[in-house]
This record gives sequence, C-alpha cells and structure tokens, in this order.
Amino acid sequence: MKNKLNNIFLLIFALIPTPFVIANNAMVIQTDFGLKDGAVSEMQGIAFTIDHNIKIYNLTHEIPTYNIWEASYRLYQAAPYWPKGTVFVSVVDPGVGTNRKSVVLLTKSGQYFVTPDNGTLTLVASSLGIDTVREIDETTNRRTGSEKSYTFHGRDVYAYTAAKLATEKITFEQVGKKLPQQVVKIAYQKPILVDGVLKGNIPVLDIQYGNLWSNIDNNLFKKLNPKLGETFCITIKDDDKVQYSGKAPYANTFGYVNKGEPLVYLNSLMNVSVALNMDSFSQKNQVFSGPKWNIEMKKCN
Amino acid sequence: MKNKLNNIFLLIFALIPTPFVIANNAMVIQTDFGLKDGAVSEMQGIAFTIDHNIKIYNLTHEIPTYNIWEASYRLYQAAPYWPKGTVFVSVVDPGVGTNRKSVVLLTKSGQYFVTPDNGTLTLVASSLGIDTVREIDETTNRRTGSEKSYTFHGRDVYAYTAAKLATEKITFEQVGKKLPQQVVKIAYQKPILVDGVLKGNIPVLDIQYGNLWSNIDNNLFKKLNPKLGETFCITIKDDDKVQYSGKAPYANTFGYVNKGEPLVYLNSLMNVSVALNMDSFSQKNQVFSGPKWNIEMKKCN
Amino acid sequence: MKNKLNNIFLLIFALIPTPFVIANNAMVIQTDFGLKDGAVSEMQGIAFTIDHNIKIYNLTHEIPTYNIWEASYRLYQAAPYWPKGTVFVSVVDPGVGTNRKSVVLLTKSGQYFVTPDNGTLTLVASSLGIDTVREIDETTNRRTGSEKSYTFHGRDVYAYTAAKLATEKITFEQVGKKLPQQVVKIAYQKPILVDGVLKGNIPVLDIQYGNLWSNIDNNLFKKLNPKLGETFCITIKDDDKVQYSGKAPYANTFGYVNKGEPLVYLNSLMNVSVALNMDSFSQKNQVFSGPKWNIEMKKCN
Repeated sequence: MKNKLNNIFLLIFALIPTPFVIANNAMVIQTDFGLKDGAVSEMQGIAFTIDHNIKIYNLTHEIPTYNIWEASYRLYQAAPYWPKGTVFVSVVDPGVGTNRKSVVLLTKSGQYFVTPDNGTLTLVASSLGIDTVREIDETTNRRTGSEKSYTFHGRDVYAYTAAKLATEKITFEQVGKKLPQQVVKIAYQKPILVDGVLKGNIPVLDIQYGNLWSNIDNNLFKKLNPKLGETFCITIKDDDKVQYSGKAPYANTFGYVNKGEPLVYLNSLMNVSVALNMDSFSQKNQVFSGPKWNIEMKKCN
Repeated sequence: MKNKLNNIFLLIFALIPTPFVIANNAMVIQTDFGLKDGAVSEMQGIAFTIDHNIKIYNLTHEIPTYNIWEASYRLYQAAPYWPKGTVFVSVVDPGVGTNRKSVVLLTKSGQYFVTPDNGTLTLVASSLGIDTVREIDETTNRRTGSEKSYTFHGRDVYAYTAAKLATEKITFEQVGKKLPQQVVKIAYQKPILVDGVLKGNIPVLDIQYGNLWSNIDNNLFKKLNPKLGETFCITIKDDDKVQYSGKAPYANTFGYVNKGEPLVYLNSLMNVSVALNMDSFSQKNQVFSGPKWNIEMKKCN
Repeated sequence: MKNKLNNIFLLIFALIPTPFVIANNAMVIQTDFGLKDGAVSEMQGIAFTIDHNIKIYNLTHEIPTYNIWEASYRLYQAAPYWPKGTVFVSVVDPGVGTNRKSVVLLTKSGQYFVTPDNGTLTLVASSLGIDTVREIDETTNRRTGSEKSYTFHGRDVYAYTAAKLATEKITFEQVGKKLPQQVVKIAYQKPILVDGVLKGNIPVLDIQYGNLWSNIDNNLFKKLNPKLGETFCITIKDDDKVQYSGKAPYANTFGYVNKGEPLVYLNSLMNVSVALNMDSFSQKNQVFSGPKWNIEMKKCN
C-alpha cells in the first residue's frame, strides 16, 4: 500500500505540467523602435519561443531615437512599481556594433536591467543602487543562428537573455562574468539646496501634458518649509542660458490655479514639478528637458 | 484506508498552486497618458505586483488629453465584446485632486468600470445599464505608501482597485459604500425620428479613416425603410451651425461607390455612419465629433 | 483497491482545470486600425471571450491605411521569430465587403496566417512556403450574432477564427474547405545579379531611422565578393525614374562612417540595406519604399 501511494504522489507530480512550476517574473521591454514596424514583435517572438508562458509587458517603445538619457529616465520612473525579480530590457543603442558592453545590472531592489552599458543605467543605478553588474557572455547567451548578424542585438542578445532570465532558464550567474560594481553614467545637476535656493535638473517632461518634472524630491523641498499657496520664484536654464523666469504658487491640485496659470506641485514620483493648469508649460515657455536643462527655485519674499 | 484516501485528496488540493484556482477576468486599461512615458507601465506594475497571473489588456492610451467624452465613447464601443466579469479602468481625469468621486460601476451586463465619476460613464451607463455604483474607499483600496501623493490616482487607486477586483482579491462589496444608482452624465442629442427626419449625435470619428459614426442605431434607421442604393439627404451641424449638407446612397460596402464618393452605411456597432470610399469624410468636409456635433438625415425624394 | 486507485486517477484528471491542458500558441495581431480607437480592443475581447487563457500579442496596428504591401512585409519580417503553431491575423482590408476571399494559410514553417487574400500573403508565401490554403467557412467560423454586420470582418471572422485556431477549439480542417495551393500576389522586382549589378526591390523602410531595406539577401550579395570598406555605386528608382545615385562603403557598424555619412550594411534580416549614420537616408534623399521602388548596386571601380 505504501508503495502504491508513493506511486500516486509521483504521478501527481508528473501530471502538473512544467509551465505551472516555473517562475513568473515579468519581462518589461523598452526601446526606441516605435510600434510601426516588426522589430518589437521579433523580440517578443524570440522571448515567446523560449517559454510560451512568459509574461511580457511593454514599458514604452517611443523613446526618442538614440536618446539614452530618456531611456534612463523611463526605467527610473517605472521600475519602483514592479516587483523584485522583474527583468527590464532596454534597447536604445546608438553604439550598436561598437565596443560598448552588453550587461545585466542587478539592483539592490532585486530587479534586473538588460541593456547596452551606454548611460541607460545612469538613473536606476543611483536610485535603486548597484548590487552586481555582469557582462552578457554572447558565446552562450545569444540566439542560435544569429552569429552572422551585426545589427540586431536587441533581439538576438538582449531579448534572448532577458527571457531566459525572467523564466529562470538561466541563473543570474550564467549571464556572464562579474564586472566592477559600476555602470557608465551621464553627468547631470544633482539636487541641492544652497542659501535657500533649490537647484536641480529637469530630466524629463510629462510630455502628454507639457509639465516639467525636476529631480528635486520632496525631502529636499521640505527643507524650504513650503506652505500650500506660497509663491515660488523660478528660473529655468538650458546649460548657462536663462530660458524662463517667473512665479508660481505651491499647490496640491491643478484646480488650485485658474486655467492657463502656473503652479508648483509634487508629481507622482514626489518630485518638484512645474505646470500650467490645462495647458503646456513646456510649449508655452519653450523650455524642455535633458541632462543640460536645470531649474532653480526659492521663496519669492 | 478511507482516511488515507482522504489524505490523498487533501494533498492533491494542496498541490494545486493557488494561481490556478483564482478567477481570470481581464483588466482592460484606458487612459489619456499616451505611450511615450512610464505612466502606463507604472499602472501595470502595480497590477502585476498584486497578482503575477493577472491578465492585462490595453483599450487605448491615446484618448485626447482631458477628453472625457471620448473616454466615454471608447468604453461604450469596446465593452460589449468583452465577457462578464471584465474590469475596465479608465483614467481621463482633468479634475484629479478636486472633489469628483472615485467609483466602480457594475453594469447590468456584469462588467465593472473603475474611474473618476466625471462623465466617463455617460455612454456605458445608458447602453449597458446601471446595476450598482460604489465609491472607492481609499482608506482600504489604495496602494500602501501612496498616501502622500496627490496626483496619480490612476496608479495608486484606480489600477490598484481594478487589479484587486479582477483577480478577486476583494469582492465588489469591499470596494466601498453603495452610492445612488446614477452617474455623472454629459448631455447630448439622443437619436430620434421626427416626421421622416432622423436626428442624432456624432459621438466619434472612425479616426483612422475619417468616417463619421452617429449614435442612430439600425433599429431606428429601419423605421425609414431604407433600401440599398437609395439616396439620403444629410445635414451636419456643430451646435446650431450647419457645417455640411449633401447626398449619399445607402450601401453595404465601401466599394459600392467610386473612390472619393460618399456613402451611408452601418458601422461595426450597427450605427448609421457616413464615409468616403478610400478618403476622409471628416477632413474633406471639416466635420468632426463630440457632444455638440449632430447629424440629420432623410430620404431625398 | 484497484478500482479505488483508478477513481483517484480519474479525480486527479478532473481536478486539473481545462485551461492547463490546452495548447498555448500565440495569436499575433496586425491591422491598419491604429491604437486610438476601440477596434483592436474589440478584436481582443472576442478572442479573450473564446478562451481566457489565450496569449495575444500585437505585431503592429500602425500599418499605413489600406497598405497591403506593407502588411505583407511586416508579416514576412516578424514571422520567422515566432514558433511553429503561431497564429497571425492581419486585417488590412480595403476590399472588405467585396468578393476577396477570407483565408487561412498554413505555411511550410508550420505557422497560420488568417487574413483577407488580397495580397497580404505575398511575401510570407514566397519566404515560408505554402503548405495549405483554406477558405474560412463563415457559416461556422463567425461570431454568433454578427450576421447582420457588413463591415467588421476583422473582429467577427478573422479574430474569431484565429482565436479558435490558436487555442485549438477548432482544427485547421474545421476552418473550411481547401483551396488551390496559391495566394493573391503583388508583383515586385525579385533580387537578381546581372553582369556584376545587383537589382532588387526596396520593400520597406526601417521607418524609425529612415534606413532603406532591400530584398537582396546576403547570399546573393556575397556573390559580388564584397569586402568591408569597399565602395558601392548605388542607384534608386521609383518605377523608371532615377531618384538617387551615389556611393557608400560596405560596413558592419553604423559607427564605421562619420555622422551623416551613408553606408551599405546587412540589416537584422541579413538583407542589403542603405543608411546614414545618425540621420534619415530616406528623408534626406526623398527615396521611399513599396513594390515600385527599386535599387541597383555595383562595385564602383
């Protein structure tokens, strides 16, 4: 009887199809390919071929062409809302075919980032912390039959490796050899408070609405002891050139000011931001974002 | 023996991993965020964190900014093709931070709609019927740690609540307290037939092609006893101003008329529509859609 | 005892929920509908209704309106990276309602293509080979209740049939009767090598970057015995009219030439392509793609 029961248990285990015991981490893809051609689908097809139960999500494929800075920002923006074990793959790769390294970063938050190490990791390395960086060993982590192709690493190396990692077909160790605990970083103004003046970078616009998002977080902002309704004096520069100076109240809803009026608020990342109610601050004032766009703010009085 | 078999059954149940016994309703997301930044991915990440087996689909993220009317229309258009139990979440929210209510509507069709109650529910309330409206209780249905954020209800409340509902982590009752059986509605011309003249609204364009879709359905149209090939006289107004008047035959294929010629047809929702064969009726005649754009039609003779 | 054990096995089988024993082929959708309205979501809703565990992916919904040629190209581009059993559904259908046939092509690669037979299958028929063509029998393979709708075959027939096929609710035989082993094809310049001159078609642009992709593959190109760095003389014609003539080196990375300079390279499909490093060859030279855009190349010396 004992044996028969054991057999039953073995049978039960055998009956549970393997897809149901694998890990189910998400693979989250970001590129500058757009959605008009088949490139994203090629990446997804490779990933699906590796495991039909893979869970693929798209972060965005509308990163402006070759804009590594924005790629970096979008990862920084979205990653905190995905769980440990999530595998991000970012392909914004103007240097494809040159000697930039292909890496996987494991952050201290337990998330993986598969990408060329060309600056894309600038902001997640700072915000989430570097645990380990490994270089992708293309002798093992590359789609079979793709050795002759020079130009689509996004599909043949990055999507391939990310899918294997997300579905635990390979361990993080099997990605390749450990590199020094650092990544290529793009320089930018760190948020600081000097003599009552906040200085920071405008890494990105809330583009759908034309709002300016700074990298000054709530904790630094609070040191100014801001009160709702208080007026702030704002200067925005492109490198050394002043492009805007003006005033706006600190508000916690857009409706606090009239239509078309400016306000200072904390965005969904709890960073200091500047907007017009129901209009585009960026378009109206011709101010934009990037590593060289900076903001200075202080209480007006 | 009996006991041992019982034990086996218990073991079998224990071996079936929990993700496989949960419900698998779809969560269908709609926003005016566009796909260029990380906002949609943040919403998806929150939902995925709640349940790694959640089934997320995108309705559209290209609702024109702040256009509540179009948000209402897209839900009305797509919902009938999704099954009972589907959870739609719509975030077009110009009044974020003001006192519009956050609600979940259960329609008579057995579908859930998670959204600010700002007019977004206008058309599904009419077409699918209101079963119950509940206000989201943000003391329980809000992402932990998000209490200090004023501006991203889409992620912290709507996606969070929708994901819990779709994966049956909460019951509909646990959403929050029951409200009166009504929603905020935007006014528009209901379809009517008066003295042989059909009147209705043009809620939306078939934008990819520039066709005009009215809210006059086949049942009302039939009362005119239309025959294929018969000519209709059409007037299109923006509020009180006539923007177009012309003639077109009733056809059941675009190829019935020559390239560039107008036709009247029934669209995929079985509503009366006006188009040019292989050209944009909207662009060519500068007529558009919205709560104030109306159409009148009658047989020409 | 034997009987009791048999009962246990039956019970075990009964306990494995049906979604876990179905096939899990991908359904990959392509249309010219864009992502601004609800049409794609209607298709997905119908597919999801058929099986809540269906795996739906989007190839692209940004095929230019009515552009059958580009629809054909995107299938050709993406299909090789998806596994056997994948069901592609393509809806670019200017002839909807006319007498073009609705078919499912099974290619020799073991993939299914559900589409109007209007030229969409031109390139996959050539590259993957025709195994069998069946006409969709709309008396059985059509959404219940959709018989009165003339215009949305994409949802009511194509998505419906593709979802049934992908989830093995119907066999390929149940699609409908076998047709002759052929599909409607659009004429175009096949790649040839004559007296040291390569001739071919430019089926498509790498639109995000403005690169020109030809249909001349690596095997034919190799017959010219090209060496990295060698200069090629290039002529590009729209039908019979020369639109560009110039020179470019053969390179294996974009960085091989200076910013703004042209190069000849093998793209991710291993086809001969022409680009500018960090700029749009297409925009700068006003050359485009389609069945009538052709390229001629030879070594300059």
